[in-house]
Amino acid sequence: MSLDELKARLSELNNVNRAAAILGWDQQTMMPPGGAEARARQLGTLSKIAHEIQTADETGRLIEDAKKEVAGMDYESDDAALVRAAEYDYEQATKLPTDLVVAIMETTTLAHEVWVEARANNDFEHFRPMLEKIFDLTHQMVECFGYKEVPYDALLDQYERGMPTREVKRLFDELKQELVPLVKAIAENQDAVDDSVLHRSYPIDKQREFGEKVVSAYGFDFKRGRQDLAVHPFCTHFSANDVRITTRFDPNWINPALFGTMHESGHGMYEQGIAQNLDNSILGSGTSLGVHESQSRMWENIVGRSRGFWGHFYPELQALFPDALNGVTVDTFYKAINKSYPSFIRVEADEVTYNLHIMVRFELEQAIMNGELAIKDLPAAWNAKFEDYLGIVPPNDAQGVLQDVHWSSGLIGYFPTYSLGNLLSVQFYDKAVQEHPEIPNEIARGKFDTLLNWLRVNIHQHGRKFTPQELVQHVTGTSIQTGPFMRYLTEKYTDIYNL
Amino acid sequence: MSLDELKARLSELNNVNRAAAILGWDQQTMMPPGGAEARARQLGTLSKIAHEIQTADETGRLIEDAKKEVAGMDYESDDAALVRAAEYDYEQATKLPTDLVVAIMETTTLAHEVWVEARANNDFEHFRPMLEKIFDLTHQMVECFGYKEVPYDALLDQYERGMPTREVKRLFDELKQELVPLVKAIAENQDAVDDSVLHRSYPIDKQREFGEKVVSAYGFDFKRGRQDLAVHPFCTHFSANDVRITTRFDPNWINPALFGTMHESGHGMYEQGIAQNLDNSILGSGTSLGVHESQSRMWENIVGRSRGFWGHFYPELQALFPDALNGVTVDTFYKAINKSYPSFIRVEADEVTYNLHIMVRFELEQAIMNGELAIKDLPAAWNAKFEDYLGIVPPNDAQGVLQDVHWSSGLIGYFPTYSLGNLLSVQFYDKAVQEHPEIPNEIARGKFDTLLNWLRVNIHQHGRKFTPQELVQHVTGTSIQTGPFMRYLTEKYTDIYNL
Repeated sequence: MSLDELKARLSELNNVNRAAAILGWDQQTMMPPGGAEARARQLGTLSKIAHEIQTADETGRLIEDAKKEVAGMDYESDDAALVRAAEYDYEQATKLPTDLVVAIMETTTLAHEVWVEARANNDFEHFRPMLEKIFDLTHQMVECFGYKEVPYDALLDQYERGMPTREVKRLFDELKQELVPLVKAIAENQDAVDDSVLHRSYPIDKQREFGEKVVSAYGFDFKRGRQDLAVHPFCTHFSANDVRITTRFDPNWINPALFGTMHESGHGMYEQGIAQNLDNSILGSGTSLGVHESQSRMWENIVGRSRGFWGHFYPELQALFPDALNGVTVDTFYKAINKSYPSFIRVEADEVTYNLHIMVRFELEQAIMNGELAIKDLPAAWNAKFEDYLGIVPPNDAQGVLQDVHWSSGLIGYFPTYSLGNLLSVQFYDKAVQEHPEIPNEIARGKFDTLLNWLRVNIHQHGRKFTPQELVQHVTGTSIQTGPFMRYLTEKYTDIYNL
Repeated sequence: MSLDELKARLSELNNVNRAAAILGWDQQTMMPPGGAEARARQLGTLSKIAHEIQTADETGRLIEDAKKEVAGMDYESDDAALVRAAEYDYEQATKLPTDLVVAIMETTTLAHEVWVEARANNDFEHFRPMLEKIFDLTHQMVECFGYKEVPYDALLDQYERGMPTREVKRLFDELKQELVPLVKAIAENQDAVDDSVLHRSYPIDKQREFGEKVVSAYGFDFKRGRQDLAVHPFCTHFSANDVRITTRFDPNWINPALFGTMHESGHGMYEQGIAQNLDNSILGSGTSLGVHESQSRMWENIVGRSRGFWGHFYPELQALFPDALNGVTVDTFYKAINKSYPSFIRVEADEVTYNLHIMVRFELEQAIMNGELAIKDLPAAWNAKFEDYLGIVPPNDAQGVLQDVHWSSGLIGYFPTYSLGNLLSVQFYDKAVQEHPEIPNEIARGKFDTLLNWLRVNIHQHGRKFTPQELVQHVTGTSIQTGPFMRYLTEKYTDIYNL
C-alpha cells in the first residue's frame, strides 16, 4: 500500500522536524552561550535531511499513488486529509533548492545570537548585515515559491495558507477606520484608568505560582508539558503529549509573566488538544498561525482580561501579593490590566492599540519586499510609522525596530497572523457562547471546561486536517471578519472608559 | 577531493548523533512524562538516519579514496587520524545488519522501562525475558563483529578499542591479590573512621552552590556548559562548547551531589578541552570510556578526596553547613569521605572496594557470554560472587543484580572500563606530578590550572585522534598498569586507617 508507505515516510519526516524543534527549544531556554555555533550546524543538518525526505522523488511518487487510494474516501477522513496536506507540503518544498533551505537555517540560527546582542546593546548596525542577508534569502525564496499578485503573498501563505495580502489589507483598512476614533476617544478620557498598581513589587516565585495555577485551571496539562524561562517567550511542541511553553518575569511589573503565561497556554492547549491518532503525523500541529493566535489571545484577553475572570481569581492574587494589592479593589485592578495607551513594545500593548503595532510591521515588510525601503533606512522608517500610527517615537532601537525576534529568525510575513488571530478569537468565542450561553458564568466561577471542550471538539482535535479557511468557515459559517472583534472591543472599552 | 567530501559527510553524521544526544539529555532532565512515547520514535528515526549515513556505500568509497590522499601525511595529522577513525567506525558499523541494529534499539528502549519497574518492585523475573533477549541479540552482534580469542573481546572493543579480555583478566588478577589483603586490613581497623557526619542535614541549594563553585575552580566552564538534575547522573556533549553535566541531591547525605558533580565535571572538562578544530568531526569526543573515566575519577578521587583539597575548601564548606559541620574537624571530615567498607551499590562504593564491584560484573558477563551461566541463575550467581568478593549478600535484587542501568541498555562489556579508568587516573596524575611537582601544593591552595593544562595538552585536546592504547603509551610511556593505583591506594589508606 502506497498510503502506508507514505505514512511511514511522513512519520519519519515529522520525527526529524520535531527533533529540530527540541534543538530550537533548548537553544532558547537552556543552551549555554558557547553552544550557538555547533547548534547552527546541527539544525542545518536536520533541516537538510528533512528537506531531502520532503522533496524526494519517492515522496512525490507515493503521494501520487496514495491520492488514488484515498480518491473514494470521505473528504474529512484522516487519510484523505493527510494526503492533501502531504501534497501541499511537497509542492511548497520542492520549489525550494536544498542549498537555500540550508542557508536560511544556518543564517537565522547565527542571526538569533547577533540579534540578542544588538538588542541588549541597542545597536541596529550590529544586526543590519544579518538582516540584509535574511531579506536577501527571503527574496530568493519568494522567487522560488512564485506569487499571484505581490511578493508578500508568497510569504503570508507560509503562515496563513490561502490568505492573500490584498484581503489582509482590506481587513486592516476596516480595522483602522474603527480603531482610530476609539483610540482617540480613550485618549480624551485617559484619566479614567490608572495602572500604577501593576508596577509594584511582585516577587517572581509567587508570580510563577499564580500563573501556573491559572493555566492549570484553564486546562494546560503539566504532565504533558512544562514552562521555562525565555528572553522572547514562545510555545513549541514535540508531540501532543510534550508541549513546552515559556515566559519571562519582571519583579516590578505583573503583566509580562501573568498574561504571557495565559497567552502561551492558549497555544499549548491547542497542541495538547490535537487528536492522538494525528500525533505521529504531519497533521499533528495547529493549522495556521492565525488560528493558533486565536487560541492564545482568547485565553489571554477574552478570558484572562475579563471582569468575570477576576471576580473569581482576584482575592487569590491579592492574598499572594498583599504588599502590592492591599486596598486595591477588583475594579481598579480590572481597569488597570485593560488600560489602553500608545506604547512601544508590541507584546506589552493593550487590546486596542495592539493591531496598530502589527500594521507598522506589515507595511514595512511589504515596503522592503517591494524594494521601496532599504534595510539601512529601516529604523527611521519604523520610527516614522510609529509616530504616524501611535503618535509616539521609540527612544531607541531596542524599544523600536529591534524589539521582536521574528526577523532574526527569518519570519517575514508572519506578523499579520497576530491580528488575524485577534479577529478570529472573538469570532470563535462568540460562536462558543452562542452554543453554550453558560460559558461567561462558568468563567466567573473559575471553571473553563465547557469553553475548552468546545475548542477541543471544534478546533483543536483537527490539527492540520483542514486549511485555516476551511476550519473558520466550518466553525463560524463565514470568513475572517472585523465586525465581531470591533463590537467586542467597543463594548468593553466603552464600559471601562465611560465613553 | 574525496577527503573534503568525506569530512562533509562525517560532519553531517556527527551533527545527527549530537542532535540525538540533545534529545537524550532532554529526555533525562527536562521531558514531561507524556513525552516518552514520541521521544522513542524521534530517537529511533535519528538513529536510523545516522546508521544509514554511517554504512552507506558512498561512505566506504570516500574512505577508500581519502586513504590514498592521506597516505603520505604525518601519522599524527588531523586528516590522517580522521580517516583512520572513519575506517574503523565504518568497518564496525557495516558488520552489523540494519535489522539487528533496529532490533537492539527497539528491545533496549522497551527493556529500559521494564528494568525501571523491575528494580522498583524488586522483581528480577519481570526483567528476565528482556535480559535474555538482550543477551541473545548481543550474541548475534558478537558473531557479526567476530573476535580473536573469546566472544567478550568483541564487546570490550566497542568501549575500549584494542583491549583484549585476557589483558583485563591479568590486570584484575593483580588487583585482586593486593586489594583483598587491603580490604581485610581496613576491616580489622574499621573503627578508625566514622562517616556519620556525612549523613546530616545539607540543604540542597547550598549543596548546589558549593558543587558549582568547586567545579568552576577546577576549570569546568559554565559558559560552555551547564548542570541539571537527573535521576541517573551523566555527562553528555553537543560540542566542545556545549557540555552538559547532571547531578542529584540527597538533603541528608552530602556525597551523591558533591562527589557526583566533581566526577561529571571530570568527564565534562575532557570534552570541553578537545581542540576546536576537531569539534565539528567524529574526532570531537573522548577516545574511550576508560580514558574518560580516568578524568572523572581523577577529579573526584585523587583531587576531590585528597587531604590537600579539603585543607583549602573545608572552611568554606563548614561555613555553608554550620548545622552539620560545626565542631567537625577537617581531619574527621577527610576521613569520613574516605571511609572504606563493603557495600551493595557500585556508584556509592569507596575507592578500595569499587573495583571489586566491577570484577563481579566482568566475570558474570563473561560467564553468560561463554554459555556457562543462564540468565535465570544470574541473581544467585551475583549474590554468591558478592559474598565471595565483598563478604556481604545483597538483601534483595534491587540492591543486587538489578541496580545498574547498563544491561537494560545493552551495554555489555562496558563495566571493565570503570576499573581501567581508575588505574589510568593514577598513572596520568603521577605523570603530571612528575613533570610538575608543584601540583599537590597548588591543589592545597585551591588552584588547579597546572593540572588541568597538563591534561588538556596531553590528553583532552586530542579527542579521538589516537586510540586509547596509543594515547596511554604516548603519555605514560607504558600500558595500563596496576602498580601506580595500588601504591596510591595503599599509601592513602595506610595513613587514614593507621595500618
